[in-house]
Amino acid sequence: MATAPHNPTSSVLDLTAPLPLDGGQVLTGVRVAYETYGALNADKSNALMIFHALTGDQCVASPHPVTGKPGWWLRMVGPGKPIDTDRFFVICANVLGGCYGTTGPASLADDGEPYAMRFPVITIRDMVRAQVAVLDALGIEQLHAVVGGSMGGMQALSFAANWPLRTRAALIVASTARHSAQNIAFHEVGRQAIMADPKWKGGDYYGAGKGPDSGLAVARMAAHITYLSEEGMHDKFGRKLQDRPDGTKGAKTFGFDADFQVESYLRHQGLSFTDRFDANSYLYITRAMDYFDLAEEHGGRLADAFARTQARFAVVSFDTDWLYPTAESRTIAHALNAAGAPVSFVELSAPFGHDSFLLDVPALDRVIAGFLGQ
Amino acid sequence: MATAPHNPTSSVLDLTAPLPLDGGQVLTGVRVAYETYGALNADKSNALMIFHALTGDQCVASPHPVTGKPGWWLRMVGPGKPIDTDRFFVICANVLGGCYGTTGPASLADDGEPYAMRFPVITIRDMVRAQVAVLDALGIEQLHAVVGGSMGGMQALSFAANWPLRTRAALIVASTARHSAQNIAFHEVGRQAIMADPKWKGGDYYGAGKGPDSGLAVARMAAHITYLSEEGMHDKFGRKLQDRPDGTKGAKTFGFDADFQVESYLRHQGLSFTDRFDANSYLYITRAMDYFDLAEEHGGRLADAFARTQARFAVVSFDTDWLYPTAESRTIAHALNAAGAPVSFVELSAPFGHDSFLLDVPALDRVIAGFLGQ
Repeated sequence: MATAPHNPTSSVLDLTAPLPLDGGQVLTGVRVAYETYGALNADKSNALMIFHALTGDQCVASPHPVTGKPGWWLRMVGPGKPIDTDRFFVICANVLGGCYGTTGPASLADDGEPYAMRFPVITIRDMVRAQVAVLDALGIEQLHAVVGGSMGGMQALSFAANWPLRTRAALIVASTARHSAQNIAFHEVGRQAIMADPKWKGGDYYGAGKGPDSGLAVARMAAHITYLSEEGMHDKFGRKLQDRPDGTKGAKTFGFDADFQVESYLRHQGLSFTDRFDANSYLYITRAMDYFDLAEEHGGRLADAFARTQARFAVVSFDTDWLYPTAESRTIAHALNAAGAPVSFVELSAPFGHDSFLLDVPALDRVIAGFLGQ
Repeated sequence: MATAPHNPTSSVLDLTAPLPLDGGQVLTGVRVAYETYGALNADKSNALMIFHALTGDQCVASPHPVTGKPGWWLRMVGPGKPIDTDRFFVICANVLGGCYGTTGPASLADDGEPYAMRFPVITIRDMVRAQVAVLDALGIEQLHAVVGGSMGGMQALSFAANWPLRTRAALIVASTARHSAQNIAFHEVGRQAIMADPKWKGGDYYGAGKGPDSGLAVARMAAHITYLSEEGMHDKFGRKLQDRPDGTKGAKTFGFDADFQVESYLRHQGLSFTDRFDANSYLYITRAMDYFDLAEEHGGRLADAFARTQARFAVVSFDTDWLYPTAESRTIAHALNAAGAPVSFVELSAPFGHDSFLLDVPALDRVIAGFLGQ
């Protein structure tokens, strides 16, 4: 199951042309860091692009550059796996605004200082624009498919809508065509937590020792709750008490230690996140997600976003995902129907909430293998 | 509708006896601040106790002492209203650990300094114990009813379970018999936000200028999302943009201002909360809620908690409440059935999520009037 894909390759592309942004600005000197697996065939017809989620990175099936953990979709990407690297040339780029090699707020601006909050606010479409530049540089005219879960699904939708001839298929998992009020609200809590941390310093914390780790940890904790299902948390933690490092059996301490396992788990999620993510990137990427509204970009009617696409689509949701519930996927499927695009839509049953797309859900493997194998 | 109840009276009770706590400590010099409405009849048989929620207070139907806003349940409590002050003598006390006159972390300990984090961790049952002392002082042997929504419902359950002969009826609205993993998780995010604020200073911020307002505001923002329904947020805010104070029409600013109305609303909720609530009280009260597990207190079987009660019960949930969903109320009703206690259970339809119990839901008025009128 955990066979590494062959030929993992880390690359960077320095864009020679300035990158126009939806906000009206133009970004020069953009670098895109990306990972590839497998081999591009002679007529360049077997390429497939994966888009990563909010806190993901390009190392889909390679060890994480900071934590050393296996790639975040190693279960899905590799020889003989649903995204078969014996067959496909798989590309995944770190998103614009990210912190794993692609230009983002921690990158140096023309004056040699980090952009920090001088970095322009970007959109999902801006991220995709930078990734299309990678395809251009590789001479890939049309992809076999674009694939993405969560924010990756937003990028896949944006790609199919705005570069309609550049892919033959699009697979959107656990995603949405627009951020809801509740989605925006949770992100705003996270942003306020970061900006309330005095170590954020208006974003100018680079090279000043520790950044706003406390705020970023709180942001991650709040977001993490939305990635799990109530049912999943109950099954995993319930009200179970946490044993102490000294071996003491878990008990209510009548204090503010992490008595409950769920508290301990969340604190760990928050703290470990600060080791691998840049707080300003978190601000910019969540903002891009909140701004995302594919219908609005296309005159207000979602079906119109897909008017020119010739791709076939698969849309997958999970029954316990309350961050981007099935209704959001159904909206996408209906719009594709209305646009006359071939689409298959499936709601899978899995207990893990939104995170299901990253976890052991064999039905998802079958759906992906089946869709990409056509 | 907004008729004030007659004879609103603010009182304080200084307990002469030390208050034993579930954590094993004993608290001396406890003061309980409470509000009463209406008149106690000669045989003291018409008293009714309302328990307030996490951020509530004793001013059920009196202007808020800080904000001056109308009492939080003025729609429900008054002459001729569902909780009829022409008929009932209504009592509501600020909870132990609170910040509206009852002893809490901001109160002075024996050494003349605020308790701050030296205040003992308390439980829901400890809160009720302090309120029972009020009944004792007033010479009220048995209440007509105990009534509470959310954390107030936990207190009503605890009262009926642990002081089974002291009330003839118990009305529990939008509540639960135990905090779930997800409930604990959200509270833990709030506590971490407060404790991460350098102005929290380990709790010793009293008299040191501003307290941990930033952290408390973030805690409130996160909690506030859980009080609303996804549907309600969508109806109220959707993706609507916020007009600027200078009159500029709402637009995406490609910055980090509150572009969306939901962001502006949440920021306001967070900031205004810091004017009226003590951060340490927030820590202690959320901890008490997380510790609440009525079954665990009674050997692990919820029905056993109600073995000695002679009260009749009404349990009310709201279909859009995802903080304490209907399943939690159903669990309470089933346990009461198993214990042989008379119980009516109803799920009401209302779009406001958990906050429905505080808002304009005429069906709730009818249920409460009907139940208390018997």
